[in-house]
Amino acid sequence: MKLYDCVSAPSPKRVRMILAEKGLDIPVEQVDLRSGAQFSEAYKAINPRCTVPALEMEDGSVLCDSRSIVRFLEEVYPNPPMLGETPREKALVEEWRTRIEQEGFMAVAEAFRNTAKGFKDSAITGPQRYAQIPELAARGADRVRVFWDVLDARLSDTAFLAGENFTAADVDAYIVVEFASRLQLGPSEVLEHLAAWREVVAARPSANA
Amino acid sequence: MKLYDCVSAPSPKRVRMILAEKGLDIPVEQVDLRSGAQFSEAYKAINPRCTVPALEMEDGSVLCDSRSIVRFLEEVYPNPPMLGETPREKALVEEWRTRIEQEGFMAVAEAFRNTAKGFKDSAITGPQRYAQIPELAARGADRVRVFWDVLDARLSDTAFLAGENFTAADVDAYIVVEFASRLQLGPSEVLEHLAAWREVVAARPSANA
Repeated sequence: MKLYDCVSAPSPKRVRMILAEKGLDIPVEQVDLRSGAQFSEAYKAINPRCTVPALEMEDGSVLCDSRSIVRFLEEVYPNPPMLGETPREKALVEEWRTRIEQEGFMAVAEAFRNTAKGFKDSAITGPQRYAQIPELAARGADRVRVFWDVLDARLSDTAFLAGENFTAADVDAYIVVEFASRLQLGPSEVLEHLAAWREVVAARPSANA
Repeated sequence: MKLYDCVSAPSPKRVRMILAEKGLDIPVEQVDLRSGAQFSEAYKAINPRCTVPALEMEDGSVLCDSRSIVRFLEEVYPNPPMLGETPREKALVEEWRTRIEQEGFMAVAEAFRNTAKGFKDSAITGPQRYAQIPELAARGADRVRVFWDVLDARLSDTAFLAGENFTAADVDAYIVVEFASRLQLGPSEVLEHLAAWREVVAARPSANA
């Protein structure tokens, strides 16, 4: 197996944290997004979607997003479980990961990619060109604020997002919190349950993966 | 168990098709989205996100999106498998479902909700109010066209989206094709692999669920 990674991007860290939690160490190749290496013919032959992370499996075929990669790793290396143990917990991991993606990650990405100079005509990842939409950036920033309240309310009830265990849902949420904070869109310390959870996650060795 | 459903909306059909494929028959309650029943206090107490589908589990707790519900059903009623059998197939189901959601379903929803009169200030599902963004509607329609080419290319290689077996990825893609077609955004018949697959899926009894 081989992971195509970019240390400065948020999405691949989701995979690196899962690898670290499972104690796996696999070959990694960096793809320099800042110089546009994801659009090179060489990388397009690996992942036509021009995104990272990508995972080349042992049969040579390639998985092209963090969600499929995490699923594959969970099935092949089930311990410790990162996608839940009981049917109910597995469903809650799925539900929180979907919310985090739609209400958190996409909102931060909208706020970022629709304003940053480097992303002109590249407001969505991938090979197609899409112009920036300033109203979408503003809406993204509004949505992120709503989402922090959602996370804080949830974490006032449970230690981790899917319940009592640390799972891939917490990994995903931590990546969003970090990504947003770099852009000055992070959660206020006033949201004390979210702040306490963030400290707990930051203290795990995988948080530095 | 009890499913909160709305026969006129696309998302709940994803769950109804999975239930039909698995031969499950559970109590269903309709939530009339057209009259705004999802915003009633009674429904907010069930699903604060004000969306359908929702699944009340036997312990009384509620799953609030189709992805978590399908995962729960798969874990409790594994046959026939709808989320893949081998690690590789499970990962490909995950990858295609994520692409279908982001590049297909969201694109159609953007095209629809940012123009339809009935969705003024309701451009995103849920209790928050968000104004329509006409540029986002136009971009959504562009993205849908790109996505049909992606599906057609994939289906020129494999019988179904994740490979040789009909899975939840095909269910999700079929819902997007139907949803888009109702809005005159459906795929052209010129995309012959996609058209042939669509006929195969439409012939399954679950397509009428």
